[in-house]
Amino acid sequence: MNSNTLRKDSGECDIYPSRVLDSARIIQRQDPVVYGSAADGPLDGAQLASYDGKGYLCIDGLLSTEEIAVFLEELERLRASDLVKHAPEAVVEPASRDLRSVFAVHKLNRILAGLCTHPKVVAIARQLLGDEVYIHQSRINYKPGFRGKEFYWHSDFETWHVEDGVPRMRMVSCSISLTPNTPTNGPLMIIPGSHREYVSCVGTTPEDNYQQSLKRQEIGVPDDATLADLVERHGIDTMLGAAGSATFFECNVMHGSNSNITPLPRSNVFVVFNSVSNTPVEPFCGLPPRPPFIAEREDFTPVGDH
Amino acid sequence: MNSNTLRKDSGECDIYPSRVLDSARIIQRQDPVVYGSAADGPLDGAQLASYDGKGYLCIDGLLSTEEIAVFLEELERLRASDLVKHAPEAVVEPASRDLRSVFAVHKLNRILAGLCTHPKVVAIARQLLGDEVYIHQSRINYKPGFRGKEFYWHSDFETWHVEDGVPRMRMVSCSISLTPNTPTNGPLMIIPGSHREYVSCVGTTPEDNYQQSLKRQEIGVPDDATLADLVERHGIDTMLGAAGSATFFECNVMHGSNSNITPLPRSNVFVVFNSVSNTPVEPFCGLPPRPPFIAEREDFTPVGDH
Repeated sequence: MNSNTLRKDSGECDIYPSRVLDSARIIQRQDPVVYGSAADGPLDGAQLASYDGKGYLCIDGLLSTEEIAVFLEELERLRASDLVKHAPEAVVEPASRDLRSVFAVHKLNRILAGLCTHPKVVAIARQLLGDEVYIHQSRINYKPGFRGKEFYWHSDFETWHVEDGVPRMRMVSCSISLTPNTPTNGPLMIIPGSHREYVSCVGTTPEDNYQQSLKRQEIGVPDDATLADLVERHGIDTMLGAAGSATFFECNVMHGSNSNITPLPRSNVFVVFNSVSNTPVEPFCGLPPRPPFIAEREDFTPVGDH
Repeated sequence: MNSNTLRKDSGECDIYPSRVLDSARIIQRQDPVVYGSAADGPLDGAQLASYDGKGYLCIDGLLSTEEIAVFLEELERLRASDLVKHAPEAVVEPASRDLRSVFAVHKLNRILAGLCTHPKVVAIARQLLGDEVYIHQSRINYKPGFRGKEFYWHSDFETWHVEDGVPRMRMVSCSISLTPNTPTNGPLMIIPGSHREYVSCVGTTPEDNYQQSLKRQEIGVPDDATLADLVERHGIDTMLGAAGSATFFECNVMHGSNSNITPLPRSNVFVVFNSVSNTPVEPFCGLPPRPPFIAEREDFTPVGDH
C-alpha cells in the first residue's frame, strides 16, 4: 500500500504524512542522509559514513574552553534576567518559573549569534546538507540540576514537517554543550539508525500546539509499540562529553532524555540548519504556522562566509 | 553547639532530629555501619570494608536465573490484577492507574515471601547488622518503561526515624533486580559515603504524609545546597547489573533515581531488615505512626533459619 496521503489543504501529495492516519506506521525515508562528500571537508569519509549510518556525529572539543566560557557566561546572564523570562521567545517552567529555553538566540543576542554561526559549525552543516544553509531555529536549553525534566522521544522533523511545512529531510541540528554531559545528568539519548524510518504518529495537531509541546510534547510522539520495536532493533546511544563537545544529529533521528535529579545542570545551545533548497511551504497539518522565532519562514539568508 | 533536640512528645533526646530545625544541617552518624565481622560470613573482609566505606554493596548473580524467572512471573501476575490495585498496600500512578508499588509482599504473597526471606539475603543482612533481623518493610517496585517517574534523593532512615520511630541506624535494605539495570532505564543512584552524614531536613511532617510521599517525596528530602555539597565531595555511583543482582544499601545512604523513558522497565523487590535490638518507639515527629503494612511495629519475629 502506498503510504502517501493527500494534503488536507491543497490535494498535494505528502510523502511524510503524520497525525492523519488511524494507527502508527513506519514510513521508509525518501531522502539522502548525507548530501555532500568528503572532498567538501571538513568531515572525512569515516565521519560521514558514521553519520550516515547512525544519524548523528559527536565531535569532542569542537570549541575551545575559552570560547565556551564566554558563551556560558552569557547564558547565565540571560538566565538571571527577568526581562528575558517575559520575552515571547522564552519558555518558563510552569511551577518554578525557571527559564527552560530561549528561542531565536541567533537574532536576539550578539554573543550567542556568534556561536550559532561559528565557522566550524556552519562548515559541517554545509557539508552534511551539500548546500548553502540558513538557520531554521536556534535556542538555548537549560536543563537545571535537581529538578530537570525529561524530554520524551520524538523526531524533530516530524514537527518541522507537520507544523512548520518543511518538505524534505535535508536539515541537521547541532547541539553544543556548555556544561558536561554525564551518564546521570539526563544526557541526550539517540536511537542510532532510526533516522531512516519515519514514524507516522497518531493524533491531531491542536491549534497553537507549540505552547504546550515546548513544555511537554504529547502530540507527534511515537506510540509505545513502535518505540519498543525501534529500540529492540537499534539500541540506544547516549551522548556524553565535556563542555565544548558538539553533537550533529539528523532531523529525523529519534531522540529524548531522562530527567536530571543530580545537582549538575546540563545546558546547551541548539541550532537547526536547513538547506536553502528546502524552505518551508504551508504546514502539512493545515493549521497556521508556528511563530517565526520558533521556525523561520521569511529570512533564508545563508549563514557563514561566502 | 549540640545538635540534639528534645523530642516533641516526651522530652527524650533525639540524636537524629529532622524536620524540626529552621535550616538544614549535617549531623555526623552516631552509630556503626557494619556490626558483624568477616568471621560471621558470608561476606569477606573486603566486602565488609567496601560496604563500610561506601554504604552499599552490589552482588552480581546472587540469585539464579531460574529463581528470578519465578519471581518475575509472580510480579507480572500481581501487576495485571485489579484486585491488587485496589488493595491498601498498593500505590497506583494517579494519571495512568498503573501499579507503582505493592507493600508488605512478605506477608501477602507466599512466592515473594520466599524471596524476602531467601537464606542468601537474610544471611548477609544478619552479618551486616550483627544481630537477628526482622522485616521492617518489603515492597515490589515497578518502574515502567516509557513513563517511569524519578524518585528524588532521600535517606530512608530519615523517614523511618521521623515517621516510624526507629531509634538508631542499624538497618539495611536489599534491592533485588528482577529486570536489567542499564545506564538509561533510571537505575538506582547512590552518593557513596553519604551514610556517615545525616541530613537534618527542613519542613514539618503533615498528617498521613505517606499517602503523598510514596508517590512523590517532598518532605524529608535534602535541600539543594546540602545535596550539591554531598555530591561534590562524594560523587554519584550508579547501580547497574543484570536481573538477579542484589544491592545491599545502608539505611542512611542518600539515593534516588532519574526517570525512565526507555521501553525497558525496571522492577525490583525491596526488603528492609532491622535489628531486633532496634525496634521502633513512638515516631519522632509526634504524629501517629504509618500503617503496619509500610512499617512493622508489632511482629518482630526474626526471619531465617535458627
